[in-house]
Amino acid sequence: MSRFFHPRYANLKPYVPGEQPREKKFIKLNTNESPYPPSKRAVAAAKAEAERLELYSDPTAKGLCEAFAQVVGVSPDEVMATNGSDEILNFAFMAHCGADRPAVFPDITYGFYPVFANLHGIPYTEIPLRGDFTVDVEAICQTPGTVFLANPNAPTGIALPVSEIEKILQSHPNDVVVIDEAYVDFGGESSVKLIPKYENLLVTQTFSKSRSMAGARLGFGIGQAALIADLQTVRNSTNPYNVNRMTMAAGIGALADEDYTKANCKEIMRTRAKTATALAELGFAVLPSETNFLFAKHPNIGGYELYRALYERGILVRHFNTPKLKDYNRITVGSPEQMEALLRNIKEILEEIK
Amino acid sequence: MSRFFHPRYANLKPYVPGEQPREKKFIKLNTNESPYPPSKRAVAAAKAEAERLELYSDPTAKGLCEAFAQVVGVSPDEVMATNGSDEILNFAFMAHCGADRPAVFPDITYGFYPVFANLHGIPYTEIPLRGDFTVDVEAICQTPGTVFLANPNAPTGIALPVSEIEKILQSHPNDVVVIDEAYVDFGGESSVKLIPKYENLLVTQTFSKSRSMAGARLGFGIGQAALIADLQTVRNSTNPYNVNRMTMAAGIGALADEDYTKANCKEIMRTRAKTATALAELGFAVLPSETNFLFAKHPNIGGYELYRALYERGILVRHFNTPKLKDYNRITVGSPEQMEALLRNIKEILEEIK
Repeated sequence: MSRFFHPRYANLKPYVPGEQPREKKFIKLNTNESPYPPSKRAVAAAKAEAERLELYSDPTAKGLCEAFAQVVGVSPDEVMATNGSDEILNFAFMAHCGADRPAVFPDITYGFYPVFANLHGIPYTEIPLRGDFTVDVEAICQTPGTVFLANPNAPTGIALPVSEIEKILQSHPNDVVVIDEAYVDFGGESSVKLIPKYENLLVTQTFSKSRSMAGARLGFGIGQAALIADLQTVRNSTNPYNVNRMTMAAGIGALADEDYTKANCKEIMRTRAKTATALAELGFAVLPSETNFLFAKHPNIGGYELYRALYERGILVRHFNTPKLKDYNRITVGSPEQMEALLRNIKEILEEIK
Repeated sequence: MSRFFHPRYANLKPYVPGEQPREKKFIKLNTNESPYPPSKRAVAAAKAEAERLELYSDPTAKGLCEAFAQVVGVSPDEVMATNGSDEILNFAFMAHCGADRPAVFPDITYGFYPVFANLHGIPYTEIPLRGDFTVDVEAICQTPGTVFLANPNAPTGIALPVSEIEKILQSHPNDVVVIDEAYVDFGGESSVKLIPKYENLLVTQTFSKSRSMAGARLGFGIGQAALIADLQTVRNSTNPYNVNRMTMAAGIGALADEDYTKANCKEIMRTRAKTATALAELGFAVLPSETNFLFAKHPNIGGYELYRALYERGILVRHFNTPKLKDYNRITVGSPEQMEALLRNIKEILEEIK
């Protein structure tokens, strides 16, 4: 830390994203990317736009917001496009929290929430998950503050039904409830349908997972128009041209190809079911996942040891070295071929330690 | 403003970027974009990367930072890539200012500085430009706080020599001095050469102007490694994948084609000189510009009236409706053909009001 850094950041620990190895060729199952390429329409649209980079992108992202609003079933002034969904989450922490307005989230969830809170000097309460790794909805309902809830949750993969989300919304009439639906397209139930009913609901989604566009950086906030207008004020006071032309075009292309997205999600869910069964047969405890990853532990090998053993064999999974998570690994559901390689290697590793 | 927006933003007025018209075909001279397309290498690299969007971008932007560092003559840990240079400016306001650490900038400069300051609750002092629209370096030297200085300045176009920047750096040994070099490639003198000597210097640059990549969103911060490390902490606590794959590739492509960038800058400077002379011959007062725009007023027509008359004729320039700027228009230096159309239309407008 240089002497010019404001002392309020003295203890700030940034978020550490999963490794993005550049050299060695890994089977990459550590950052929940899609094993399938983006829609051909997305690719073609991005390429066409690469020819027009001398002009700024549309700061209102009009065409993109219209297309997304139509697909999720809201009106265009109820959506806002961001540079990945981390950006809309950051804006929500800024807009809806403060030193006098705490945040509330589960103790096991997307690891970025406490980072945003610390960055902006926002106090927060972490609600412990129940013993079975499910979210303690009752405890959240009883805790004042702006709620941030990944649904399905990460890294557990477990989803809450919308009826439970509604309990939280009703218990927090004067707080915004942010439902982070990064993984909702793999079997979860979206809370977007609640938006007409709840002025305090903000849903966030991303194109990084189901739409195979992690490298394009595109996220959305969805909520009633007044809530979105406030978030637009924050965006326009931060980076009005936050979404570049190529990503904007790719997003519109992807949204014109929803059948492709749905087919990929279905295939990933099929692969997930097969992989979960195979892992269980190998002795793993696997949490019930509604996402594109599996969270699993094995009685005979520690989480870190399995992570390292797979790493040595060219397979990258995500290990979290915290007391409650250290026995587990988060494994992205890749292609059937990638899962076969994963299972084959795990079998060999388990054989070796017998 | 919804009842959920934090009251600290009650009076926040977002930055208003220049119009990006979608329908009518304008000669667009209002946002200082380049009239020339991006480098063919940038376009080809972006297109290739559009095929790999399912994978996250490299959060360290290693290849891009190495290429940029080499071109500007610093080491890779002295640069940081951002989603346009607005993002690095925002990070600098966050990292180096606070309620207890004010900001200092000229009263006429990039209109985003007061927006960033207001967003983060940072008090600021605006130092009036001198009567000839030059920056009052002595007054800045005497005013405590983190300095933000666009050099060349906008919308005046006037540049300071590096010797004047050095005075500011020496007068503020305990404050960061941010030199915003968005327009430096059109004849200004870069302060990057001062970086080895001053630990309190942060230079920001953008690929939006000289490298014809406004629509790709790419900016950089350049400073000593300790200063950059702090800004990386803010970035990694905000949006670690802030630069998408396509833009990252396009940036590397553009940096491999510096001859093209330099030729475009030279051509724009040639066009600027011709246009300035022609405007002066028509009776305009034109400020001496080291940028890709001209700031000019005419004794016979108000700034807004000229803006509107050009708008009606399909030419978009930028008008700022503030007491000190209202007589002027900021006119982007486009292609020779665009400048001919501009001058022809201005001539006709001046004829009409005779």
